[in-house]
Amino acid sequence: MLGQNQYGKAECRVVKVSREGATHHLKDLNVSVALSGDMTDVHREGSNANVLPTDTVNNTVFAFAQERGIASAEQFGIHLARHFVTSQEAITRARVRIEEYAWQRIETSDDASRFVGADAVRHSFVRAGQEVRTAQVSYDGRGWEVISGLSGLTVLNSTNSEFWGYAKDRYTTLKEAYDRVLATDVHARWRYRWASDGEPVPRWDTAYERTRTHLLQAFAETYSLSLQQTLFQMGARVIDNRQEVDEIRLSLPNKHHFLVDLEPFGLTNASADGAVYYAADRPYGLIEATVLREGATQAIPTDLTSP
Amino acid sequence: MLGQNQYGKAECRVVKVSREGATHHLKDLNVSVALSGDMTDVHREGSNANVLPTDTVNNTVFAFAQERGIASAEQFGIHLARHFVTSQEAITRARVRIEEYAWQRIETSDDASRFVGADAVRHSFVRAGQEVRTAQVSYDGRGWEVISGLSGLTVLNSTNSEFWGYAKDRYTTLKEAYDRVLATDVHARWRYRWASDGEPVPRWDTAYERTRTHLLQAFAETYSLSLQQTLFQMGARVIDNRQEVDEIRLSLPNKHHFLVDLEPFGLTNASADGAVYYAADRPYGLIEATVLREGATQAIPTDLTSP
Amino acid sequence: MLGQNQYGKAECRVVKVSREGATHHLKDLNVSVALSGDMTDVHREGSNANVLPTDTVNNTVFAFAQERGIASAEQFGIHLARHFVTSQEAITRARVRIEEYAWQRIETSDDASRFVGADAVRHSFVRAGQEVRTAQVSYDGRGWEVISGLSGLTVLNSTNSEFWGYAKDRYTTLKEAYDRVLATDVHARWRYRWASDGEPVPRWDTAYERTRTHLLQAFAETYSLSLQQTLFQMGARVIDNRQEVDEIRLSLPNKHHFLVDLEPFGLTNASADGAVYYAADRPYGLIEATVLREGATQAIPTDLTSP
Amino acid sequence: MLGQNQYGKAECRVVKVSREGATHHLKDLNVSVALSGDMTDVHREGSNANVLPTDTVNNTVFAFAQERGIASAEQFGIHLARHFVTSQEAITRARVRIEEYAWQRIETSDDASRFVGADAVRHSFVRAGQEVRTAQVSYDGRGWEVISGLSGLTVLNSTNSEFWGYAKDRYTTLKEAYDRVLATDVHARWRYRWASDGEPVPRWDTAYERTRTHLLQAFAETYSLSLQQTLFQMGARVIDNRQEVDEIRLSLPNKHHFLVDLEPFGLTNASADGAVYYAADRPYGLIEATVLREGATQAIPTDLTSP
Repeated sequence: MLGQNQYGKAECRVVKVSREGATHHLKDLNVSVALSGDMTDVHREGSNANVLPTDTVNNTVFAFAQERGIASAEQFGIHLARHFVTSQEAITRARVRIEEYAWQRIETSDDASRFVGADAVRHSFVRAGQEVRTAQVSYDGRGWEVISGLSGLTVLNSTNSEFWGYAKDRYTTLKEAYDRVLATDVHARWRYRWASDGEPVPRWDTAYERTRTHLLQAFAETYSLSLQQTLFQMGARVIDNRQEVDEIRLSLPNKHHFLVDLEPFGLTNASADGAVYYAADRPYGLIEATVLREGATQAIPTDLTSP
Repeated sequence: MLGQNQYGKAECRVVKVSREGATHHLKDLNVSVALSGDMTDVHREGSNANVLPTDTVNNTVFAFAQERGIASAEQFGIHLARHFVTSQEAITRARVRIEEYAWQRIETSDDASRFVGADAVRHSFVRAGQEVRTAQVSYDGRGWEVISGLSGLTVLNSTNSEFWGYAKDRYTTLKEAYDRVLATDVHARWRYRWASDGEPVPRWDTAYERTRTHLLQAFAETYSLSLQQTLFQMGARVIDNRQEVDEIRLSLPNKHHFLVDLEPFGLTNASADGAVYYAADRPYGLIEATVLREGATQAIPTDLTSP
Repeated sequence: MLGQNQYGKAECRVVKVSREGATHHLKDLNVSVALSGDMTDVHREGSNANVLPTDTVNNTVFAFAQERGIASAEQFGIHLARHFVTSQEAITRARVRIEEYAWQRIETSDDASRFVGADAVRHSFVRAGQEVRTAQVSYDGRGWEVISGLSGLTVLNSTNSEFWGYAKDRYTTLKEAYDRVLATDVHARWRYRWASDGEPVPRWDTAYERTRTHLLQAFAETYSLSLQQTLFQMGARVIDNRQEVDEIRLSLPNKHHFLVDLEPFGLTNASADGAVYYAADRPYGLIEATVLREGATQAIPTDLTSP
Repeated sequence: MLGQNQYGKAECRVVKVSREGATHHLKDLNVSVALSGDMTDVHREGSNANVLPTDTVNNTVFAFAQERGIASAEQFGIHLARHFVTSQEAITRARVRIEEYAWQRIETSDDASRFVGADAVRHSFVRAGQEVRTAQVSYDGRGWEVISGLSGLTVLNSTNSEFWGYAKDRYTTLKEAYDRVLATDVHARWRYRWASDGEPVPRWDTAYERTRTHLLQAFAETYSLSLQQTLFQMGARVIDNRQEVDEIRLSLPNKHHFLVDLEPFGLTNASADGAVYYAADRPYGLIEATVLREGATQAIPTDLTSP
């Protein structure tokens, strides 16, 4: 018996340059498309009559980048998802996943005109390198689900974090901590309320930037008694401030920074004075939770943000 | 509002050596534990009273490896999951994910006795390096769910693969292929029927080895008209032959090997003669599907095997 | 016969927090130490009498971070290298390699005082994420060699790059390009002239920041007829402007961005209008060269920056 | 001033299928070519007259795979290196680096004939997954240098390893070990004596297989008092047994497996009984050395095998 199935092209690496005279703009995406529908025959008998080749999916990504441009990752995903579902009778559902890589302009030197005959160069970029922005757009011909997010935003508080008063059993040896380093890689996915063509469309880029800022600020401004508490504050800050977001899921590895024992060398190493830490790789704590708007239904899959 | 949440220790790298005289045995696991339960207070107020530290989880993994040994990844996961749910009142659900790395014995030289005073060395190993074996054990105090699998088993057929007769639209440029290379990294997860302590427990290692063999053989022995067909044959072969398995999900990237155009250099490059291919990285097709036993309910999450 | 040999501890992940009241500072290093000297006995007979354990090397890294602080990666490497060579008679040469990860402060919200009782939080950081800064300090008891650098700084020019007039042979099919995207990951290593304790020590952080800026600006401000030309301009800009640097080696992968052929879909895709590119992974061109100050001797190994 | 420079195409992923009736053979290489010569003009002025495009280099790799086949990585590298140096006047030196990935045949099922109409399938492969074989061929128009090797062969001895009697200083806390786990990833590069066309050419595949076996056996059969001793035994075993090899360099990370302290839980954890270890990631010891044949000159660069 054939169960859930999907197919498509993964990791189409499309870069779009737009020019306004000498000023260039850059969009740099990694696009993966998964299509579902009437696919019994191809699985059971190898009949490809209903299968639009994944090579065609790839071509479509590049053609759409030129025909429609890339206003935002989310908008680009909407164009693509609608296209596949509405143009191929056999395809009833499309899911478009996009990673976006940010670029910043290179600030040119005072002597730029000497080198390039212009006061500034407006076509040179350096990759921002911090988090990867993500968007997932799903469409079944009737309704939309847009889950945006970010991966790999690494943050650290060097104080205002404690951990004590926890449950203990036979295997507990951990000492309570009253001033520890708290560090994590933020993996976040948030779901927009927007679900059908009639509703007003969120301003995707603004929503992204503000959500990102709220996550950073809530991390910095929470006096933390546990990473769970910090996580909940981060999620709640987004839900409280961004009306277009109904649900957010956070997956936060506890990137342990252990105070090094320097006593054998006659040295004190106390957090209160500034201290030396060992940044451990594995194992790591892993804290995951969804924060929801009152009345919203949880829809972001647990495994979407899990490592 | 707080939604689904879980926490625990990820990537505990435990290696267990067992000795039978001079003959040693090795188990090499990467264990991740996720616990759920009554965790509202820690998220909302930072009260850790219900939180068994992730450091304790890590200690437990190592202590259990010594106290109970590691009969198999699945059995070890069952011990751990049961322990957390039954010993901590606040914890109502445990999910243990394990990666297992295989090792083979190093065959010693004819002169071994000259070097080590024994005909053979029985404590030397080389890592097998092929697929990673995986196991996921979930327990809620009543029933069990065991999903085993493998990741990263790379296979290639150099013939017996075609792709033609597919749907075409404005963006289709792909040429039909009647003799192509078919290659993929097999990512598989299969769910055992076993769900409660009263039922007979599968022989985990045998089930793993046989399932792996069926996947390889079905890949090799399918004359393929599309990767979907090959996938279904692989899944069906497992369901048909392994009664303890109710469901299997496969995620198969189509690792494209493109016939290189050598005509500009006056060379022919035809599959039928043996040919030269370019092994591409991205983009790649991605084919995912679940194959189920008649009457079984689909339970393996779509995102579990997705990249 | 035993040839060149060295041993030590690699990848000591040391994080140092310094506090000035509520304002914290962060240094985040990955330190690898390689020691050489009179090591014949340990290789031939397993006598460890001359071997300071690598565990001790690790301890020393953490102890020095506390005792002496981390003024810069280079200065920290100098402290360590001098220590091993001068304190262990058997050790005659030390090479310390350091990677440094940059962090920026998180800008706190207007409401910070409501959350943390202060106008701003001065202990919260987000990792910068762009290039990794590197330093390599070598000491043999007499002289110093300091090679600093950076890895993984990704840059792109969306115009002002051409490639034509090249050599052609039987296997040449490439079309000439008069307006192409030029992108690379900058891997640079530069050697300071400073070589002995008597000479004035460079201002390591300033030298790093300025060199980095020159590399970026030279990349942006060069109208490029080949990546080799751009590389040479980048190197020459550093040599011309930073007197403390005698030599620089650059390893620049040509991260190809290919103009997609959209003609089959009735679309034009011309660079001059802004265009759509496919960002390829492999293969890639790789351009490597050393640029030297007149009279300087080449000392940066060819393989240091090679992938 | 322009110093050492080289350019070329990196990571050409060429797969060659050869057919003998229904029996297929597979060669899977990753080829990188670096060319040097009269390249001043392209660096200084952007004149590409002496620059064979890296795209042509890529084409040549694929064309040669068809025209000349791939007898071995080394032989293929010799063909390529000779071609570039002898066919392009401006190019005076070529260095070809190759990674080779091994594949094994999939053993087909007893029922193969039912599925494919043949007793066995001879065109199905599974990637071996252990070490990567490497070859580096350099040619300057007169002489050859061939450095072969392997990367990422992971081995472990669960006993017959001690570490004690080492130097101690103020920062030493390590306890002596009389029965420890010794594990490493073998990175080896060995240089063949063969240097000119008149000399008899080594049997590259045999030499590789035997050298690999000697490395494994020497690792298994050495009672180790330090990893340096094991390294030297591995190198010496190759030099003693393979006359065609003049020099070998080994880079061996000490993949620490720490005995876990289970005393707090009332458990003993002693190596002699079989024990539980924590497999650490970082930091790790790193032992590197060259072993030479009497009279040979050291030529493998120190940085070639360094991480």
